[in-house]
Amino acid sequence: MKSGVPSTSPFRLPSWAIRLARRQPNQIVAASDRMRFVIQLALTNITAQTGGPFGAAVFESHTGRLIAVGINVVEPTNCSLAHAEVVALANAHRTLRQFDLGTPGLPKLELITSCEPCAMCYGAILWSGVRKVVCAARGSDATAIGFDEAPKPKNWVATLEDRGIAVTRDLCRDEAIAVFQRYQQAGGRIYNARKRLT
Amino acid sequence: MKSGVPSTSPFRLPSWAIRLARRQPNQIVAASDRMRFVIQLALTNITAQTGGPFGAAVFESHTGRLIAVGINVVEPTNCSLAHAEVVALANAHRTLRQFDLGTPGLPKLELITSCEPCAMCYGAILWSGVRKVVCAARGSDATAIGFDEAPKPKNWVATLEDRGIAVTRDLCRDEAIAVFQRYQQAGGRIYNARKRLT
Repeated sequence: MKSGVPSTSPFRLPSWAIRLARRQPNQIVAASDRMRFVIQLALTNITAQTGGPFGAAVFESHTGRLIAVGINVVEPTNCSLAHAEVVALANAHRTLRQFDLGTPGLPKLELITSCEPCAMCYGAILWSGVRKVVCAARGSDATAIGFDEAPKPKNWVATLEDRGIAVTRDLCRDEAIAVFQRYQQAGGRIYNARKRLT
Repeated sequence: MKSGVPSTSPFRLPSWAIRLARRQPNQIVAASDRMRFVIQLALTNITAQTGGPFGAAVFESHTGRLIAVGINVVEPTNCSLAHAEVVALANAHRTLRQFDLGTPGLPKLELITSCEPCAMCYGAILWSGVRKVVCAARGSDATAIGFDEAPKPKNWVATLEDRGIAVTRDLCRDEAIAVFQRYQQAGGRIYNARKRLT
């Protein structure tokens, strides 16, 4: 199986995302290049109008081999769970046939995401078995254009790191913010859970 | 389509769960009866050895019509995301073809779960659109047999309620704990994310 493209996905990806994953080199070595691929997923998702301005991918940490991709497909899949990180993790589980991506015998895996995880995705990362998370935009950058990230534990970074999941933030942050701004300027839909009652 | 049984599921349910859902009456009126059905899902999941001791379901709040069921199928689906609540919510989205279960025009929906949500499921509930969550066991009851629930915001109940999601706890708690204890006594597998480093 070609890396990065699961045979079947619990969250169906648009065909452009599968083609884009297939066009990637076998290994993407530099962390910033991995992130730029993920930001390209986010950007193409909004220009193709297939979802929100978020992308993610799972890579082998050492080799840079692409294991799985994810984009926000909440609207086209009619599923509130289909955040980019959840989709990427679900596809990685499917591709590797492993519910623990940190199981002995697997290469160390990392999640690259164009935005810090929301409350749900923070929890999903904890259970997934990835050993590292690299984020571009801050959660506050997403809320700045109207998305609701919902409260995580205040010490969420320390919680991940205490459990052996390294966290890197702000890699290519400006490029990810630019995708958010483009989405906002294009009048992209901001769907939310319920607004906080005031 | 028969209620409670999606035509296709992003997380495949074992056949016994589909049969059990089909055998339910069209409406389950009492909250405790809804919870007992969910605890029966959790119990059957361990006796059938198809996953962990957790069950959940989405109901129409007023009528008691069963919309979707979920059980923990992390191991058989090879997916760390496949907690009972996530599976039930994903199936509800699939059945109703709606990414917002609280959208105008839909009856109010509620999630009944045999255990309080973990960190991930707390976030998933926020995004789902359900208007109420009813829990049996406490998170601390799950950690008492070795499961890792991971830190949620300390005020997670208030966070849900502030966003219009009512929370009821401890309904049939002892019955849900009994399922946990049975799982533990049977030597059921306790899979975790990484243990907290000490």
